[in-house]
Amino acid sequence: MELSTIYKSVHDELSEVENQFKLIVESQHNTFPDLYEMLSHILIGGKIMRPALNLLAGKFYNYNPAKLLPMATASELLHIATLIHDDAIDKSDVRRWRQTINKIWGEDKAILLGDYLFAKAGEFSTATDNVRAVKLFTQTLAAISQGELRQSFDAFNLKQTREDYIQRISGKTAALFSMATETGAILSDAPEESIEILGEYGYNLGIAFQIVDDILDFTGSEEEMGKPIGSDLAQGTLTLPSMLLLEHYPEDNPVQSLFEPGLWKMGNKQEHIKQAIELIRNSSIAQECQSIASDYCARAYRNLDRLPDNSNRQALVELAHYVTDRTR
Amino acid sequence: MELSTIYKSVHDELSEVENQFKLIVESQHNTFPDLYEMLSHILIGGKIMRPALNLLAGKFYNYNPAKLLPMATASELLHIATLIHDDAIDKSDVRRWRQTINKIWGEDKAILLGDYLFAKAGEFSTATDNVRAVKLFTQTLAAISQGELRQSFDAFNLKQTREDYIQRISGKTAALFSMATETGAILSDAPEESIEILGEYGYNLGIAFQIVDDILDFTGSEEEMGKPIGSDLAQGTLTLPSMLLLEHYPEDNPVQSLFEPGLWKMGNKQEHIKQAIELIRNSSIAQECQSIASDYCARAYRNLDRLPDNSNRQALVELAHYVTDRTR
Repeated sequence: MELSTIYKSVHDELSEVENQFKLIVESQHNTFPDLYEMLSHILIGGKIMRPALNLLAGKFYNYNPAKLLPMATASELLHIATLIHDDAIDKSDVRRWRQTINKIWGEDKAILLGDYLFAKAGEFSTATDNVRAVKLFTQTLAAISQGELRQSFDAFNLKQTREDYIQRISGKTAALFSMATETGAILSDAPEESIEILGEYGYNLGIAFQIVDDILDFTGSEEEMGKPIGSDLAQGTLTLPSMLLLEHYPEDNPVQSLFEPGLWKMGNKQEHIKQAIELIRNSSIAQECQSIASDYCARAYRNLDRLPDNSNRQALVELAHYVTDRTR
Repeated sequence: MELSTIYKSVHDELSEVENQFKLIVESQHNTFPDLYEMLSHILIGGKIMRPALNLLAGKFYNYNPAKLLPMATASELLHIATLIHDDAIDKSDVRRWRQTINKIWGEDKAILLGDYLFAKAGEFSTATDNVRAVKLFTQTLAAISQGELRQSFDAFNLKQTREDYIQRISGKTAALFSMATETGAILSDAPEESIEILGEYGYNLGIAFQIVDDILDFTGSEEEMGKPIGSDLAQGTLTLPSMLLLEHYPEDNPVQSLFEPGLWKMGNKQEHIKQAIELIRNSSIAQECQSIASDYCARAYRNLDRLPDNSNRQALVELAHYVTDRTR
């Protein structure tokens, strides 16, 4: 199923979010042309999955677009801000088939543009006039940066457990997914039980999403993904597929060779990564990871039947399947 | 007058802010030792001027420490977060007589720790349960990063006016000063007129503070400042003293030689900076800048007599004098 079909019931609102992005860009046109250029480059495209989650989750009770739209906008701005900082840190050149901010404008501008978009995201969140939602927003940013810090400190460390991995991606990805669904519920005056169900949906969907992302970093194609393959290993980030590779081939394997200092020189780094990609593609590893992602996907929608039955509930189930089945 | 004397009426509350900092550090002791190390290193010392401004401004009407303390904490956390990113961008090695985060842990960790502290600052701001104050907080972060972006894009650009400079430092510094005083007023239910007076006080004080900072980057001593002298010029940042130098010596001067591409090689960069420092120290330039700072200082307290007369009002006047007279 196409994303646009799943998003059908919030199509107009998503256009409104994209319209907000255009306004943010345009507001700098005459006053700060350099910032205008950067914003034009970055506030475009993407799956806009977090706004969609926010809006869909907000359609079960008192649907209130005046509060949901700013939060939907805030959630995507926050996501984009973290991507800009990630790319600066990883020195990535390409994202979404386009050059990164750090590639075009340099790392310094990327840091500051990310900060600026964190701030704009915060501003939009406050337009909800709902302190509980804004609180969740700031806690989410803390969880994301803490997750990224863990990832950074764990780089090239072989001694990580699956629990470490889940904890890390909980912060890095699932926190924002669950913020989107939970604030959607809060801003539509959902009962506490439904807020919890929708928050839990977002959390598990986020974990599934990140696991699939980490699989695709080995099995995907550069053309479909819009960014290089094998980049996690290149950064020394141990994700679920490489963890399973270590478990399956404990004696001698390319991840170990890559991570253990002194065992490789720049020349054979790419060779190790290539071997790891091949091992993961040509073994049961990718399928095992996929099955774990499917488990989280099932956990995501297991309690949805306790929500009012409507087309948005169906859309959330479809989205969970989309997230696990996607190839990009 | 010593800062501790000026801060006398909010001494206990400032200790409480420092206590909050200790709690933030301690909360990571067992769960994330690397983050604990970084927080222990950075959440210490400083003039804590923004919390002091927030608390002093909050003492004219319904003094409410339960709301003021989190905002006072938030304002200093926000300040520290911006310093961490600034140092990463400038590749500075030393700040407040200590090594910078980027020097010890590298630029990547500095980016993420800054993000984490932005988030913690945001979280503290939401503990006020006052959406207006939180809104101001997020707008301030946007103003700061926009000011920093302008500075970054204007690096090594000789075609800047004094208006450009004031606009830049309004965002970079004065926005946070005025947020501190304005939210202090808001959180103590001050009448609108007083909120405006206190916000304006903070704004003008912030401009004066930054001008003095920019003077001290030429006339200060490394020992007193706790960081290298001449760093603005090294980064290509044109501040008020260098602008006056360009005005006074339009024909041939070290700032022009430094900024015009092709005119210097790494070897004589330091020589140009040294010449600029000497010219500014041994001419009327520093004094002229000081006089402009004093004007802003006077503007800062010109309307304070419309506030209730108490020891805090006196402290704000004393603080304005401290800011312009300081040598560190």
